Amino acid sequence: MRYLTAGESHGPQLTLIIEGLPSRLPFSKEKIDTELARRQKGYGRGRRMQIESDQVQILSGIRFEKTTGAPVALAIENKDWVKWVEIMRPDTDPGQAEKRRVARPRPGHADLNGAIKYGHRDMRDVLERSSARETAARVAAGAVAKQVLEHCGIRVASHVVRIGSVATERIDLNGWTAETIAEKSEASPVRCLDPEAEQAMIRVIDEAKEEGDSLGGVVEVVVENVPVGLGSHVHYDRKLDARIAQAIVSINAFKGAEIGIGFEAGERKGSQVHDEILWSEERGFHRATNRLGGFEGGMTTGEPLVVRGVMKPIPTLYKPLQSVDIDTKEPFAASIERSDNCAVPAASVVAENVVAWEVAKALLETFSSDKAEDLLREVERHRNEVKGF
Amino acid sequence: MRYLTAGESHGPQLTLIIEGLPSRLPFSKEKIDTELARRQKGYGRGRRMQIESDQVQILSGIRFEKTTGAPVALAIENKDWVKWVEIMRPDTDPGQAEKRRVARPRPGHADLNGAIKYGHRDMRDVLERSSARETAARVAAGAVAKQVLEHCGIRVASHVVRIGSVATERIDLNGWTAETIAEKSEASPVRCLDPEAEQAMIRVIDEAKEEGDSLGGVVEVVVENVPVGLGSHVHYDRKLDARIAQAIVSINAFKGAEIGIGFEAGERKGSQVHDEILWSEERGFHRATNRLGGFEGGMTTGEPLVVRGVMKPIPTLYKPLQSVDIDTKEPFAASIERSDNCAVPAASVVAENVVAWEVAKALLETFSSDKAEDLLREVERHRNEVKGF
Amino acid sequence: MRYLTAGESHGPQLTLIIEGLPSRLPFSKEKIDTELARRQKGYGRGRRMQIESDQVQILSGIRFEKTTGAPVALAIENKDWVKWVEIMRPDTDPGQAEKRRVARPRPGHADLNGAIKYGHRDMRDVLERSSARETAARVAAGAVAKQVLEHCGIRVASHVVRIGSVATERIDLNGWTAETIAEKSEASPVRCLDPEAEQAMIRVIDEAKEEGDSLGGVVEVVVENVPVGLGSHVHYDRKLDARIAQAIVSINAFKGAEIGIGFEAGERKGSQVHDEILWSEERGFHRATNRLGGFEGGMTTGEPLVVRGVMKPIPTLYKPLQSVDIDTKEPFAASIERSDNCAVPAASVVAENVVAWEVAKALLETFSSDKAEDLLREVERHRNEVKGF
Amino acid sequence: MRYLTAGESHGPQLTLIIEGLPSRLPFSKEKIDTELARRQKGYGRGRRMQIESDQVQILSGIRFEKTTGAPVALAIENKDWVKWVEIMRPDTDPGQAEKRRVARPRPGHADLNGAIKYGHRDMRDVLERSSARETAARVAAGAVAKQVLEHCGIRVASHVVRIGSVATERIDLNGWTAETIAEKSEASPVRCLDPEAEQAMIRVIDEAKEEGDSLGGVVEVVVENVPVGLGSHVHYDRKLDARIAQAIVSINAFKGAEIGIGFEAGERKGSQVHDEILWSEERGFHRATNRLGGFEGGMTTGEPLVVRGVMKPIPTLYKPLQSVDIDTKEPFAASIERSDNCAVPAASVVAENVVAWEVAKALLETFSSDKAEDLLREVERHRNEVKGF
Repeated sequence: MRYLTAGESHGPQLTLIIEGLPSRLPFSKEKIDTELARRQKGYGRGRRMQIESDQVQILSGIRFEKTTGAPVALAIENKDWVKWVEIMRPDTDPGQAEKRRVARPRPGHADLNGAIKYGHRDMRDVLERSSARETAARVAAGAVAKQVLEHCGIRVASHVVRIGSVATERIDLNGWTAETIAEKSEASPVRCLDPEAEQAMIRVIDEAKEEGDSLGGVVEVVVENVPVGLGSHVHYDRKLDARIAQAIVSINAFKGAEIGIGFEAGERKGSQVHDEILWSEERGFHRATNRLGGFEGGMTTGEPLVVRGVMKPIPTLYKPLQSVDIDTKEPFAASIERSDNCAVPAASVVAENVVAWEVAKALLETFSSDKAEDLLREVERHRNEVKGF
Repeated sequence: MRYLTAGESHGPQLTLIIEGLPSRLPFSKEKIDTELARRQKGYGRGRRMQIESDQVQILSGIRFEKTTGAPVALAIENKDWVKWVEIMRPDTDPGQAEKRRVARPRPGHADLNGAIKYGHRDMRDVLERSSARETAARVAAGAVAKQVLEHCGIRVASHVVRIGSVATERIDLNGWTAETIAEKSEASPVRCLDPEAEQAMIRVIDEAKEEGDSLGGVVEVVVENVPVGLGSHVHYDRKLDARIAQAIVSINAFKGAEIGIGFEAGERKGSQVHDEILWSEERGFHRATNRLGGFEGGMTTGEPLVVRGVMKPIPTLYKPLQSVDIDTKEPFAASIERSDNCAVPAASVVAENVVAWEVAKALLETFSSDKAEDLLREVERHRNEVKGF
Repeated sequence: MRYLTAGESHGPQLTLIIEGLPSRLPFSKEKIDTELARRQKGYGRGRRMQIESDQVQILSGIRFEKTTGAPVALAIENKDWVKWVEIMRPDTDPGQAEKRRVARPRPGHADLNGAIKYGHRDMRDVLERSSARETAARVAAGAVAKQVLEHCGIRVASHVVRIGSVATERIDLNGWTAETIAEKSEASPVRCLDPEAEQAMIRVIDEAKEEGDSLGGVVEVVVENVPVGLGSHVHYDRKLDARIAQAIVSINAFKGAEIGIGFEAGERKGSQVHDEILWSEERGFHRATNRLGGFEGGMTTGEPLVVRGVMKPIPTLYKPLQSVDIDTKEPFAASIERSDNCAVPAASVVAENVVAWEVAKALLETFSSDKAEDLLREVERHRNEVKGF
Repeated sequence: MRYLTAGESHGPQLTLIIEGLPSRLPFSKEKIDTELARRQKGYGRGRRMQIESDQVQILSGIRFEKTTGAPVALAIENKDWVKWVEIMRPDTDPGQAEKRRVARPRPGHADLNGAIKYGHRDMRDVLERSSARETAARVAAGAVAKQVLEHCGIRVASHVVRIGSVATERIDLNGWTAETIAEKSEASPVRCLDPEAEQAMIRVIDEAKEEGDSLGGVVEVVVENVPVGLGSHVHYDRKLDARIAQAIVSINAFKGAEIGIGFEAGERKGSQVHDEILWSEERGFHRATNRLGGFEGGMTTGEPLVVRGVMKPIPTLYKPLQSVDIDTKEPFAASIERSDNCAVPAASVVAENVVAWEVAKALLETFSSDKAEDLLREVERHRNEVKGF
């Protein structure tokens, strides 16, 4: 399973082609739209997000609500494209582009290094693609992957564990299921499971906003009921935890990824890190704890996957950052008025979806999957086999 | 550029094939052996490491100390193979294997999930490959990649920033170069730049050892003089920071990766995260700070790359962990006597080399590189162009 | 450079995403439309082709007639989609699908094996994607690749060398250039360079049509001014001639591919096959003949690439072929009235474009190509270097 | 499943790493050696082939005659390496290299374009890798793939259908099985099934030899009992026939590939090309003929795969070909005394093995295959399902 995305922030649409889905998989447009809507919510988002309300358009690969096995093309229209036609058109420049040329690179964006790499003097040619708008396409891909996972009883959820200075305690997954995490986080404006932390997060977002500043944070994704043995220890590039780390860090503004207790594993002693192995008639092999986040040797252990990613604060904000005009080489203060100052809750939805993609991809690589029914039968056979190991 | 590795911990050798090197690149066997030796050092390592002293054997692709452009095959012999022949041989089992069958999975290793995935009842069939011994092959690959980087004036270094409870301050890279980092870390038994922290690290390793416990830690890799624009913002899977994160997490026992200030970026306010843009006649565009670790939009900015990875403690130790025999389903206490209890300094060398690989790969993808001289000329042309941007 | 295509024969559109183009490449929508129109022409085509008149829509990656470096998404609308909505829609089946269900597999199509693989009882779920309609998307990809080649002075042309029993003599490329081939073939209704053979081809097409039969044939693609050394001998999967063979055979209905004199090389003696090496001050190294079609060791030699592909006859025709209903298991005679009975001239355009893609891809892999100007400069530098070798 | 090969014609060894095999597959070193021996036989081969007698050495991935799932590394020693050490060594040139420098490119080899691409003035740096010696490694890979196929009851055979001017009639596969083809071809010095053609082939080889000339030819590979639905019509790069065409053309000296009747399909009328569909209680769906060589829409149909490849004559021969010294630019007559003048029978073995690889790869992609028993069970389940379709 693979995909390509295309599209600019102010172009006509985002386009997505997914190749390699099983046939006859129940396919819901509504579920994709729901994910797209989830991506647009969250305390700290500005107006644009509320206006947009993305909807996916299905252009191929689906017939009567089922996959056919053919590539699925999806489009997400940009509603304000009409306002941008004159400066974003693919055909002849009507002469307005020079006037609105972007010659002032924003720190924390791809503006400057992208312009240097690709030889652009109008940095709009970079920022239109490097914009986080692209994550809508990745969410759509993840929303399709989630339908593969759901077909096999695998559930993905996410929540926010830090915004700026406010962090939650690490949750004990014995007390939480993907379902309860999803439910609780969905009900919270900052996708936080802890009501006290939630209030504190809202407070620091408001404070930062007043100061003209922005906040980042940390999100956690949990994947439940994953078959044992996705990924492989036999070659480094087949380790699924590492692929997930790549997926997480490739989300716009993400600067790190952790599996299980992650960086805490560097602080603790060995006896406080590893997960002891238990066995019982009903459950077969399982673990008392899940500090390693569902992975050993780059392969799933059967315990829930726990993955975290850190998002840096939104770089454009009222508090100006110093930069330099690429034409005049004059310094200027890069302050941009925008109404978002925290996108962490939305980023949690993006993270959830990119992780879903990697897990679904590994699932399809592991089991017969020309048809959705083959996949499900094989996953269930495998689960039985695991229980009897 | 791509590579495959093969080989078991107690098999005859590790084998490595690298495909896609430029021709006519000066190639030094000694430099590879030096990296292999560096991987075997460090306070906290046991006897096996000291005995081994790996040496690489060059089997193809090199003639008279230069690459020809053909695939390079390298072998690293396992010196104690002779002792293992009877239980590791590829031909008929002489009957000793059952006696030494591994039926007791160790927590924190791939033993159990690997056995389930691949259907092994002798977990030796998993652990021989999942062993960190494989990182010697990855170091060899990195040592070749480093020769590509060196040819273009790019320098890689690493140091240890945490062992267990002892962490160093984040260093100010204005005060350090890759060269001074390399020199200082090389001189330290724990590869630590800060003499006080170094002593504390040695102390906690000793303490853990006495308790029969083990320690992990955090390593930092720095890459200097990297051309602007490696990687790309245009498609998520071309982001170089994300590829590096995958490479880091795919190292045995690594549970997370950070770019620049990484998880700290989730705590700080936006005005404390982004790197302001400066310009001067001599240096062209550059930054006052390097909190983003040399990446914006998944592309290099020209600032040094700064990447961290966390290693969990070695899982086998005197303090027993609970596990279950896969035949009898009886619980047992998994304690294994071993003399290593901290492999973080060595892991820093591994991290350095896997990062070198990813940067060299991106370099070869970006510039004409059939011949080493093409690559160098193009990199230098590009550097001039950047200065004049 | 890579691409994915999506879309069904009677769905709303074909979609194409191309990732990995250099930035700042002059980009013409008209040139793509011209290729699409060329694909629809040719003696022996029926009405649908004449009605359609495909047009590409540019959805991303292009601004003011230049690439930005971002992925290019293209769409080609299916004009008769409106008539097919009820049986091709992605949402709920309005109840008409069962009535028009395809239960009768056509020999020579993917109907039956596709249905078995993907578990479809309505073979429309296969044939919509396996239809040669998809080649329009591949032509669009090739039309973009051609603009890369054109930027570097590389020219691609094609002509028809056999239709059914009528074959032309192998042309002497000393007497022809890509330009004259393109011009002459474009002027011929069967894309044939030899006026006598052209008349005979038209005659056999007409005869076959009267008999209710169909004809295939052989097409030849020529690529001129290709730099020496695209592809590589160092690893089997980097050989460019082999990649081109894959591209050719992957065109719908193609059953074989040849490089240079191809299968004739099996008949001749060695002294009649290889191309002697000459050298002159003006031209540097070159060849007296070009029997090997511009390739030695899987790498380009600098001589024109000459590639042939064979297309089988269109399988649906008046003369019935025996088949079996998948529900009733009753035999039936698979005769379908259609107005096409020879698609070889159109296939020659498709072949031209898929070859263009592979050559352009190899070009971008070989030379610095973030920006179109880098690519051109590097190609020209290389050409000079070759002359001085 | 993927592999890399390394090694020069006169280096110490060929090295091969195969990654992605199922675990617990019975693995026979003897079967690989047998394939290597088959590659060295055949009327028309010279002395070197008879002396060599390749043997594979297993370096990893196999324990007690079974795969473990870990990468398999294989080595094939070059027995005459000792004689070449001084001019092929990876370390310092002892000064003999210049004396034996190759400055005279042979037509029909990669010598000249390889030297230009990689900047070599000693063309030994090209020819050592471009030599057909490398096909021994590809045969070893195929011999492993064949063990995957054999495990699933899939059988591969090959024979020679043309040498120079002598061709056999196309065989009717109803009268032949892979087993009888293998048996008969194995017994023939030119791997020809037709005793009369065999004698004629030997005659033309002898005649050509007397003239100091060489001959190529055409080989045919047949794969029997292949499950329906390997490959896919849904995306052009997943078509298995096209992947096989790439594999064939990537064999040294191969200039074309055909599926089924191949180029004949361009001559015949449609009614004489397509394979009518039949059904019976015992066999399920099947075909009366197999002109399309077991493929429709790039997917296997369940009929035997029939693939042909053409090999050009060996380029080095007594009859001199004109070439030019790269230093002096003086013309010279490139005549090389060698005892081979026809390598087509051996090439038939190579073709058989590269096709085996592609089919095994597609098999593993299609079905659950972590363990060999999963693969077999899934293939058998699928075969039953197909019968009941």
